[in-house]
Amino acid sequence: MAKEISTRSADYSQWYNDIVYKSGLADQSAVRGCMVIKPHGYALWENMRDILDRMFKDTGHVNAYFPLFVPKSLFEAEEKNAEGFAKECAIVTHYRLKADPTQKGKLMVDPEAKLDEELVVRPTSEAIIWNTYRDWIQSYRDLPILINQWANVVRWEMRTRPFLRTTEFLWQEGHTAHATSAEAIEEAEQMHEIYTRFAEDYMAIPVIKGYKTANERFAGADETYTIEAMMQDGKALQAGTSHFLGQNFAKAFNVKYLTDQNKEEFVWATSWGVSTRLIGALVMAHSDDDGLILPPKLAPQQVVIVPIPKPSEEIEIHANKLMESFRALGIRCFYDKDDKNRPGFKFAQHELKGVPVRIGIGARDLEQGVMEVARRDTKEKQSIPTDQVVDYVSKLLEEIQTNMFQKALDFRQAHSHTVDSWDEFVRILEEQPGFIYAHWDGTDETENKIKELTKATIRCIPLHTKEEIGKCILTGKESKRRVLFAKAY
Amino acid sequence: MAKEISTRSADYSQWYNDIVYKSGLADQSAVRGCMVIKPHGYALWENMRDILDRMFKDTGHVNAYFPLFVPKSLFEAEEKNAEGFAKECAIVTHYRLKADPTQKGKLMVDPEAKLDEELVVRPTSEAIIWNTYRDWIQSYRDLPILINQWANVVRWEMRTRPFLRTTEFLWQEGHTAHATSAEAIEEAEQMHEIYTRFAEDYMAIPVIKGYKTANERFAGADETYTIEAMMQDGKALQAGTSHFLGQNFAKAFNVKYLTDQNKEEFVWATSWGVSTRLIGALVMAHSDDDGLILPPKLAPQQVVIVPIPKPSEEIEIHANKLMESFRALGIRCFYDKDDKNRPGFKFAQHELKGVPVRIGIGARDLEQGVMEVARRDTKEKQSIPTDQVVDYVSKLLEEIQTNMFQKALDFRQAHSHTVDSWDEFVRILEEQPGFIYAHWDGTDETENKIKELTKATIRCIPLHTKEEIGKCILTGKESKRRVLFAKAY
Repeated sequence: MAKEISTRSADYSQWYNDIVYKSGLADQSAVRGCMVIKPHGYALWENMRDILDRMFKDTGHVNAYFPLFVPKSLFEAEEKNAEGFAKECAIVTHYRLKADPTQKGKLMVDPEAKLDEELVVRPTSEAIIWNTYRDWIQSYRDLPILINQWANVVRWEMRTRPFLRTTEFLWQEGHTAHATSAEAIEEAEQMHEIYTRFAEDYMAIPVIKGYKTANERFAGADETYTIEAMMQDGKALQAGTSHFLGQNFAKAFNVKYLTDQNKEEFVWATSWGVSTRLIGALVMAHSDDDGLILPPKLAPQQVVIVPIPKPSEEIEIHANKLMESFRALGIRCFYDKDDKNRPGFKFAQHELKGVPVRIGIGARDLEQGVMEVARRDTKEKQSIPTDQVVDYVSKLLEEIQTNMFQKALDFRQAHSHTVDSWDEFVRILEEQPGFIYAHWDGTDETENKIKELTKATIRCIPLHTKEEIGKCILTGKESKRRVLFAKAY
Repeated sequence: MAKEISTRSADYSQWYNDIVYKSGLADQSAVRGCMVIKPHGYALWENMRDILDRMFKDTGHVNAYFPLFVPKSLFEAEEKNAEGFAKECAIVTHYRLKADPTQKGKLMVDPEAKLDEELVVRPTSEAIIWNTYRDWIQSYRDLPILINQWANVVRWEMRTRPFLRTTEFLWQEGHTAHATSAEAIEEAEQMHEIYTRFAEDYMAIPVIKGYKTANERFAGADETYTIEAMMQDGKALQAGTSHFLGQNFAKAFNVKYLTDQNKEEFVWATSWGVSTRLIGALVMAHSDDDGLILPPKLAPQQVVIVPIPKPSEEIEIHANKLMESFRALGIRCFYDKDDKNRPGFKFAQHELKGVPVRIGIGARDLEQGVMEVARRDTKEKQSIPTDQVVDYVSKLLEEIQTNMFQKALDFRQAHSHTVDSWDEFVRILEEQPGFIYAHWDGTDETENKIKELTKATIRCIPLHTKEEIGKCILTGKESKRRVLFAKAY
C-alpha cells in the first residue's frame, strides 16, 4: 500500500508535508531550510517553466543570466529594496578554505582569503541588473529592454516549509526597462495578466487579481500587482507578483536615456516573478488524502497503463499500441511494467503521485473488448471499449483540467464572505476561514492593527470589485472600496 | 559598420574577447570574474541545453535539483575532492546585514548572524548529492539512480576569461549510482560518447576522445574520460568530462546497498558535466575576424532576411511568405525590418552575430525573380530563383554544418604532429602549436617536468591510438603508447 499520509482534517500541515515528501516531489536536505527537488517535482517544474517561458517569449521577452552575487555596495544602493532584504541575506565573506592545523582531514576558512567587499547571494536581482542596464541604455533607441532570467535565489527565512518558503528557491524574474511610465505600467499589467492565465488555465487554480497596499508592496516598488489563490484550508497564497518600480532603481543606479527630443530622463522599470512556490500552491489547492492531484496540462505523466494482474506479452502489445497513439497526440504516458508489485499497490502509488488517468488492461477485460479507465480527480472508473480508449482519454484529460478548476472555484466561492462588522469579521476568521471582502479606512495603522488582532492581512485591493461607499470594519471611518482580507501563507 | 574586432593574427586573445563582448554573447559585470550572459549568448546556451537534455533523457536520465550550499562538514568528507576544490571556494559565513552605525545608508555584515557551520557555494555537487543518496538507497532495487542537474556553480578562479573560465558558470552535472563497477564504467563511457556526439554533430567540433592521466583526473575520480578540441591557435580545450568515481563517494558518505544475495556493498558512482565553457569553444573553433560563425544546429537564428535597400510593403510580403515556409520546416528565421540603418551596416551586424544564412530581398532582384543568399561560413553569395530559395537554404544550412565540421577537422589534422624527439617536441610547440602525439614514460614526474619546461600538458591518453612500443620523449624510458600533448585553455 501507499505510504501513510495524514488526513487534511486531522492535521492539514502534516498532510501537506506528507504529500510533498511521500509523493516524491521533494526531500529534506542537510542545509538548513533548503530542500532537494526530486525528479517528480523537478519534472513538474520543467513543465511549468516551459509553458511560462513560451508565454514570455510570445510577448517579446528574451532570457539572459546575471551573476549570483551582488557586491554589498550595489546591494545597498536602492535603500528600500536593501532594507527589505538585508535581514535575510546569505553573505559570502571568504574565497578559500585551508587545512585546519588542529584537526586532521578537516578544513577551515582561510582568514587570509577575506574579501575586500562582501558579496550578497542574490535574494532578487534588481541591483545587479540595473547596475548593468546603465551600460546598455543611452538613448530611447535602446528601450525597451525586455529580459527574463531563470535562476536560483536565496532568502534566509526563519521558518521554512518545502516549496512554500525555502532558503533557496528556483524562480524566474523579469526585469524590464522603459522610456515612459505608461509603458512600464502596461508591461507590469501584461505580466500580471500572464500569471493569471497561467494559474487559471494551466494550474487550474482560480485567482483574485489585485494590487497590494503600500505596506505589502515589494521593497522598492511603486505598485505591486498580485494574484491570490485560496488553499483548501481557506488560507490565501500569493502566487505571482508583478511590480511597477517607477524610477526608483534608475535613480539609485543612475540609469538615464536621451529621449527623441534629446532630453535626459531616468528610465522606468518593472520586475515580476513566480517561483517553485507554485508547486506548493498546486499541492495545497488540489490534492486529497490519497496524494497529489495534478492538472493534466502540467502533470509529468498524464496517463499510466497498468497490466492486470501482471505484465504479459499480450497486454504489452496493447499498451504499446495505446502509447503510440497517445504520443502522436502529444499525451505523456508510460507503461508500468513492474512485475514485483500487485495492481492495488501500483494504483495507490500512481494516485499518490497524481497521475491524472490510469488505464487498467486485464486479460479478462480484453476478451470482452474493454479496458478500465480511472480518473484521479474524482476516482471514478469506467469500462471503455478498447477502440475508443484513446479518444475517451484524450477528452477525459480536458475534462479533468476543467473539473479541477471548477472545483477550486466552487470551493473559493463557498469560502468567500462579504463582511460589514468587526464581530462577524473575527467570527468568520475563526470559524470559516476563507476570503473576506470588507471595508478598510486606507491607513497603515488600521491594516497593522487588524493583522495584530487577527493574523489576517490585506491580500490585495481586488481589481474586480467596484467602488462602494462603506465603513471600515475596525475604525468605522469612511471607505470607498472593499479589500480582500485573509490569513496567508 | 560593425564594431571593430582585433584580428586573430594581431592578437588572438583580444580577438576572442572582442567577439564575445561585441557580438552580444556576454558582458562584464561588477562581480570579480563573473560575466553577464546576454540574450544572444543565453539563446545559444538554451539550444545547447535543450539538445543535451534530450540526449540525457533518451538514455534514461531524469533531472533534479540539489542545494546551492554545501555545509563544510560534508564538503570535506571526500578528502581528495575537498582538497581539489578547497582553494577556490566562495564561503558563506553570515546570514544577515544590518545598518552600519558609522555610515548613513550603508549596510554591514551583522556579526551576531554568524553561521555555526560555514556553507560552501557548490563548486561541484558530489558531496551534497551523495549525502542525499545515502537516504535513497537501501537495496539493489533502488539502483541505478540516473540523475542530472542543470545549475550554477562557483569556483574562485584567479585568472578568468568570459565563458572559458569564470567564477560562476552554468553547467549540467550528472550524478549516477550503480550496483556494480562494470555498470558505472559503462555509464561513464556512455556519457563520454554522448558528449562526443554533441560536440561533433551539433557544435561541429571534432574531438579527441581519451582518458586523463592520474595527475589530471577530477579530484575524487578513479578515471576521467575527456573530449579535447583544438582551437584556432592550436591550443586544446577540454570540452566535456565524464568520471568513473569508483566507490570513493559511497565510502566517504557511507552509501551501501543490499545486493540480491543480501550482502552489503558500497555503491559505485559516476559524474559528468559540460558547461557554458562550450560557448567559448564554439567561438574559438569557428569564428573569423568579422565575428561569430555559429553552426546552424545551434544558432539562435539560422536565417535573417534583409530588405534592400530598405523595408517596403512588397518586400515584407515576400519575407513573410518565406518565413512561413521556413518555420514549417523548423528553421529559425527573422526579418530585419529596421529602417534606420543601411544594408551594409546590417550585413556586418548579422555577420558579427554569426547568423548562418542571410537572404537579401531587393526590388530589382525581385523583378528578375531572384533573391541573394549569402552564407556566413565562407561568405559566398548566390542569386537564387525566388521559388527555389526555401529548398536551397534548407540544404545550405546542412551544408554549412558539414562544412564547418570538415574545416575544423582539416585544421586539426594540419596542426597535429607525431613526434619522437625532445628537440622536435619543443620546436613544434614553439613554431607550430597544435596537438602532439608522443611517447611518455607513464610517470607523474615526467609529466610535471614536461609541463614545467614547455607548458604543454598531457590532454589525454587517446582511445583511438594503438599500443606501440616507443621511448619517452623526455626520459627515453620505455613507453607502450603515444599520448596527446598540447598547451591548453
